[in-house]
Amino acid sequence: MTSTDQAQALELTEDAQDLLFRQARTANSFSDEPVTEEQIRAIYDLVKWGPTSMNQQPLRVVLVRSEEGKQRLLPHLKEANRAKTESAPLVAVLAVDTDFHEKLPQMFPHYPGAKDMWGADDEFRHEHAKLNATLQVGYFILGVRAAGLAAGPMTGLDPAGINEEFFGGTAHQVLVVVNIGKPGEDAWFDRLPRLDYDEVVTTV
Amino acid sequence: MTSTDQAQALELTEDAQDLLFRQARTANSFSDEPVTEEQIRAIYDLVKWGPTSMNQQPLRVVLVRSEEGKQRLLPHLKEANRAKTESAPLVAVLAVDTDFHEKLPQMFPHYPGAKDMWGADDEFRHEHAKLNATLQVGYFILGVRAAGLAAGPMTGLDPAGINEEFFGGTAHQVLVVVNIGKPGEDAWFDRLPRLDYDEVVTTV
Repeated sequence: MTSTDQAQALELTEDAQDLLFRQARTANSFSDEPVTEEQIRAIYDLVKWGPTSMNQQPLRVVLVRSEEGKQRLLPHLKEANRAKTESAPLVAVLAVDTDFHEKLPQMFPHYPGAKDMWGADDEFRHEHAKLNATLQVGYFILGVRAAGLAAGPMTGLDPAGINEEFFGGTAHQVLVVVNIGKPGEDAWFDRLPRLDYDEVVTTV
Repeated sequence: MTSTDQAQALELTEDAQDLLFRQARTANSFSDEPVTEEQIRAIYDLVKWGPTSMNQQPLRVVLVRSEEGKQRLLPHLKEANRAKTESAPLVAVLAVDTDFHEKLPQMFPHYPGAKDMWGADDEFRHEHAKLNATLQVGYFILGVRAAGLAAGPMTGLDPAGINEEFFGGTAHQVLVVVNIGKPGEDAWFDRLPRLDYDEVVTTV
């Protein structure tokens, strides 16, 4: 089967497949073109519908738009990541709210025991919160691409430093920082290989 | 701004937005219509392009298609999840390969030190592997929807039991189990609310 046949085996149009996955690339430099609040609201309004366990929705987002905000963030990134973040018109600090269960009476109203169920065991709650917020990071990255923007997700950062600077006194913990904007000059490295289906998938 | 205005602020077509996020729902029952290997190969061939840190690609997938495979899996799911998994024509056990770094010489060939960098600290490697594999779970769920299929992701399971049954003697650990198929009768609960933009996003 050629890859065009495969693309046609999906219901999503090939243009949309390209926009989200095949032509989209992790950008390493950005143009000056601003990212509007309207765009970010539209992205959130789309990706908020992605599923989480028991409708937890533990993802929290700090948008770093000001020069002052950038200066608070940059020291906590790996040196190799600072220039690209400095060039991005908008940077999203994506975090997990490990106290997501406080909102379950509102988000999972048909099961009044939900909040207490998650409140009983901190380690269990934190682990599930991280898993579900990370799923939402995946949805968010694709949402940025859905807006026709390039996303540059980064995990090369000092979590303790970012948590203290942006989330001190809260139950939020950074997961990933994502540069957002239109790609700049020489924005891409060569495309790296992907594992074959048979290296990843087995059937029983 | 109305939500139609917001949908139009994105480059992704509204039909594609609906297919992936707005009309797509977590299915709780499935029809008998089979999910073909061609569909799963097309899904993988699309979502493999989603970004991971240093091209780690730690996601591994066991597709449970046979009755025998189902019987190995079901005892390790929460009782409330068993009937829907039993009704699904295909079930994907999504796991992380915490030894992903063994493949980095092939996947990140321009940096020969990559394998040793990740090999030095098991805890650091496992944490990043889980984060990146979970991002890939997010891409995978949307890929299932891109194929016009319903996904039913579940975290209500006994990880130790699944790891022993399916991944004994390997460095793989289950993250999420996803039921896959065409929705059956009464497949959806009522749509649950989502957090507002201002509850999730702050700007600095």
